[in-house]
Amino acid sequence: MQSKKTVAKKDDEQQIRQMVDTWLAASKAGDVPTLLNLLADDVMFITPGKEPFGKEAFATVNEQMPEMEATIDIKEIEVVGDWAWMRSFLRVSFTQPGKDPVRHAGHILTILRKRPDGQWVIKRDANFVMPESGRS
Amino acid sequence: MQSKKTVAKKDDEQQIRQMVDTWLAASKAGDVPTLLNLLADDVMFITPGKEPFGKEAFATVNEQMPEMEATIDIKEIEVVGDWAWMRSFLRVSFTQPGKDPVRHAGHILTILRKRPDGQWVIKRDANFVMPESGRS
Repeated sequence: MQSKKTVAKKDDEQQIRQMVDTWLAASKAGDVPTLLNLLADDVMFITPGKEPFGKEAFATVNEQMPEMEATIDIKEIEVVGDWAWMRSFLRVSFTQPGKDPVRHAGHILTILRKRPDGQWVIKRDANFVMPESGRS
Repeated sequence: MQSKKTVAKKDDEQQIRQMVDTWLAASKAGDVPTLLNLLADDVMFITPGKEPFGKEAFATVNEQMPEMEATIDIKEIEVVGDWAWMRSFLRVSFTQPGKDPVRHAGHILTILRKRPDGQWVIKRDANFVMPESGRS
């Protein structure tokens, strides 16, 4: 038999996976308000070669984002109370009219926080997604 | 008055800071066994442009490492029971005999785990430390 704690952890893990699905669907649809709702107010994105940025900069970039398709491979999720961390691998393909798709890919280490309303949101995101070398 | 929980958190934060000091001193001294003792057995380093690597690959790289000086700026530490995460900025300078020092710098997002013996160790390390652009 599983303990209550184990069951709660599994529920949280499931909710995080759903949150990731919602995230990908909103990314594809260009639904920036939904994306922003899945970010902690003090979220921070850490990426190669630039200064960490927060919610406002994220919104600006995403409003100008071309059409995209993304798939994510969740490698591990660890839930610790109202906190969690997740390691994943993201593949993104951006398409601009009349141009070849541009593919980016990379590993991500994410810190998540459970909001008082029960929604898991991104708190810190160490994001190694970069243009893929070579063509495929 | 502070709650017991708040005091325990502060103790853990202090122990993590001491662990980071030990890490930097061992890096400088080329003391690989001490560095390895501060890693979880299943540690994973995530860095730009290569596949995540673990303890064995870390040891191999560090045994060949030239003399180095490093300073770290710990931006935040969040302790959650036996887990913690830390955001920091690292500057490293490598010196090889007869050559100019090479400077690397970058942000790091680290997941830490408290071992049963009370020692905090690195579990996951998303490490953006890269050669500094330009010269200084």
